[in-house]
Amino acid sequence: MEALVAIMTRKSVREFGYKPMPDDALKKLLAAGMQAPTARNGQPWHFVVVSDREMLLRIPEFSPYTKMVAEASAGILVCGDTQNERSREYVVQDCAAATENILLAAHAMGMGGVWTGVYPDEKKMEGFRKLLGIPAHIAPVSFAVIGFPKAIGRAEMRYNGERVHRGKW
Amino acid sequence: MEALVAIMTRKSVREFGYKPMPDDALKKLLAAGMQAPTARNGQPWHFVVVSDREMLLRIPEFSPYTKMVAEASAGILVCGDTQNERSREYVVQDCAAATENILLAAHAMGMGGVWTGVYPDEKKMEGFRKLLGIPAHIAPVSFAVIGFPKAIGRAEMRYNGERVHRGKW
Repeated sequence: MEALVAIMTRKSVREFGYKPMPDDALKKLLAAGMQAPTARNGQPWHFVVVSDREMLLRIPEFSPYTKMVAEASAGILVCGDTQNERSREYVVQDCAAATENILLAAHAMGMGGVWTGVYPDEKKMEGFRKLLGIPAHIAPVSFAVIGFPKAIGRAEMRYNGERVHRGKW
Repeated sequence: MEALVAIMTRKSVREFGYKPMPDDALKKLLAAGMQAPTARNGQPWHFVVVSDREMLLRIPEFSPYTKMVAEASAGILVCGDTQNERSREYVVQDCAAATENILLAAHAMGMGGVWTGVYPDEKKMEGFRKLLGIPAHIAPVSFAVIGFPKAIGRAEMRYNGERVHRGKW
């Protein structure tokens, strides 16, 4: 799939037909995530891959908009190391860029997914910390739920000229 | 360019050979930015496009790592509306995802660019606010400097298996 097409046609996928995550696809998703730019090249991230069904089904208990995990192939918790000195206050943005790369890569490979927000919601962060044994200095930032789309939906075009300011606001 | 190739070969470009930004390329960059996912589809963003050379050259006065603006085709300040109720605390992540889309799109079109950090650095935010007349409720989040690369560099592959945790941390 052409890159601009992938960017323009990616949309959030919340309905999956369950198939296991192929190992090579997972590696490509993670490599895509780690290829995102980071502040001072700090690469402050960690990725926790959850594919065990029992574990996945516990996530909606503390993060209510994740019920689609039931038929997903995997969830990837993108976390930032808050002790990374180079990235410091940019950890969350670095993790967000990585998340977008993962979602684009999934779409380009015929999979799909949805970004579910975690940081800065304390309840969700704590839920992931407990469930997955995340250390205190690691901030769970986003949880990307990835799977095989039940249907191919059409992306809404969101370009809005009113949000563009030329030269000045 | 194939989407996975674009993701894997994108790298920060800081040396440009000046050419003006083509109008259709700019529109594609902005459309790519606005196609990123946002919390509750809030689309809380605004994009200020700076291509006037005098304006560009004033930016390094308050944001020191932006000296490459001198030969760039344009800078795009990605801003978030902090009054957007749907996005709320996710505004910065939404803008980060949009920034990554813009950089990927630039790379896919044979251009290149670099993400220069703005939020939460008060001095940089204030500098952009004053220079570009940004209202108080709008947070400048990142400044993407885009241009035509002087040379095609090879991206370092950043996949790091130590950052992957399977099942649990």
